[in-house]
Amino acid sequence: MTTQLAGFFLLLLTTFCTNAQQEWRIPASENLIYLELETGTVVIELAPFIAPKHVARFKNLVAEGFYDSLDFYRVIDGFVAQAGDVSEKKPSKNKAPLNAEFSRPTPSISDFMLVQSPDFIAPQTGYLNGFAAGRDPNAKQEWLLHCPGAVAFARDVDANSASTEFYIVIGQATRHLDRNMSTIGRVIYGMPAVQALNRANMNNASGVIENPTKRGKILWAKLAKDISQQNQLKIQIQEQNSAQVTQRLASARKLDNEFFHFKGNGNLDVCYYQLKTRLDK
Amino acid sequence: MTTQLAGFFLLLLTTFCTNAQQEWRIPASENLIYLELETGTVVIELAPFIAPKHVARFKNLVAEGFYDSLDFYRVIDGFVAQAGDVSEKKPSKNKAPLNAEFSRPTPSISDFMLVQSPDFIAPQTGYLNGFAAGRDPNAKQEWLLHCPGAVAFARDVDANSASTEFYIVIGQATRHLDRNMSTIGRVIYGMPAVQALNRANMNNASGVIENPTKRGKILWAKLAKDISQQNQLKIQIQEQNSAQVTQRLASARKLDNEFFHFKGNGNLDVCYYQLKTRLDK
Repeated sequence: MTTQLAGFFLLLLTTFCTNAQQEWRIPASENLIYLELETGTVVIELAPFIAPKHVARFKNLVAEGFYDSLDFYRVIDGFVAQAGDVSEKKPSKNKAPLNAEFSRPTPSISDFMLVQSPDFIAPQTGYLNGFAAGRDPNAKQEWLLHCPGAVAFARDVDANSASTEFYIVIGQATRHLDRNMSTIGRVIYGMPAVQALNRANMNNASGVIENPTKRGKILWAKLAKDISQQNQLKIQIQEQNSAQVTQRLASARKLDNEFFHFKGNGNLDVCYYQLKTRLDK
Repeated sequence: MTTQLAGFFLLLLTTFCTNAQQEWRIPASENLIYLELETGTVVIELAPFIAPKHVARFKNLVAEGFYDSLDFYRVIDGFVAQAGDVSEKKPSKNKAPLNAEFSRPTPSISDFMLVQSPDFIAPQTGYLNGFAAGRDPNAKQEWLLHCPGAVAFARDVDANSASTEFYIVIGQATRHLDRNMSTIGRVIYGMPAVQALNRANMNNASGVIENPTKRGKILWAKLAKDISQQNQLKIQIQEQNSAQVTQRLASARKLDNEFFHFKGNGNLDVCYYQLKTRLDK
């Protein structure tokens, strides 16, 4: 093979392997929420396919400015940061209790990509439209997992009681909440800003920060469409079916790197292997 | 039964159930390290029973002031915060490479308390002297898990190359590092201070924070014995065999609370159910 021809094939290979369209996706603008905290900017990607009514509620509340100047008033280190109106007096037309959306029936065509079966807690875990997800092939149900960064609506004991409050998982995955809470998406940018939120005193089991001045504030929340183009972050997310993700998982199953002397058992925790995000330069 | 007699039994019951000696332990002072960060105070409980040489090395380095004014220079959100001398030029007599202490042979009398068998990654998981631990009954080995808050020595590819650098797990448990790293203990106080550390840019895979002024600094590190009694925190840790822990695990297996509509499968992630800590008033 001539050097010229080799060069051509190298170029072809490089083009194929670095095709951003295949390896990374740009999340749909209508599914993005910006939260501006005192500790930094947080961006949430919504998952309307799993909890359409809760997602619509969240977008309506954001659009009307409901969360502006409210606090993360219940923050338990290693568990969740919960935000909303602790007084329950802030007016809104979007407060009526919602019916639970804990999971959805598996559709005839699902984007679910299997990572682990059986998973520790779920029959199957993997990715669903870019989110860490669980699946039960017998019950024919799919749901999103409570991995770090997951965003869900809080509720009372009644399954159908979510109204306006939401939380973000900030510690080890709270998998006992899977299929028990309506999960609306996940943080794709700014987890350090969430992790920097003030916590409740460690002896305080309720997690409610009693002194309002010590609570991390939401300066404002906005739909991406209400933010000027130049102020939007150019966030990209790994495509779940991309070569880099497939390679990462294959490598993780075998720990096929000389750094690892113990090679594991091949099982993967999808909450550790969530799809990565990056900023386009 | 007379009211008086009932009162006596109630007193007896109360005394039994609130016996602090049985439910909470005070960690041994010689196993405690204080790290004073700009973001707050962090206390580590050491586990000399699993990695005696690495624990002795860490104590020697702390005692000589090696870590004072060094940085958490490699911080990857959701993974680890790593500290040490990035220049590798700071002098010390305690830098010679250490032989790996990834696990220990199960002794004839072990304090291991089983929580989950099989675990997702390990044959067994549970508590060992108050730390989340794994166990292989066939290989007769025990080790500490890389749960959030775990502290371990960094190393190069060579298993026997740890020297002075250490890291703290700050995200979902990095279980692929179990039995691959010498784990010296865990953070029992101040994880919010660790979580508030500045991270590397999300596009930076190495995790090294290039600008030294942006790195979280260790103001000082001290052995508890070198801190005056009135400046020591009165930290208590749940006894692994206590009634409250047994009850918590039993309840978690069944999700026997009306809040939970889906009752799980009975499996537990011991990294979520780590033993709690509190401050004595």
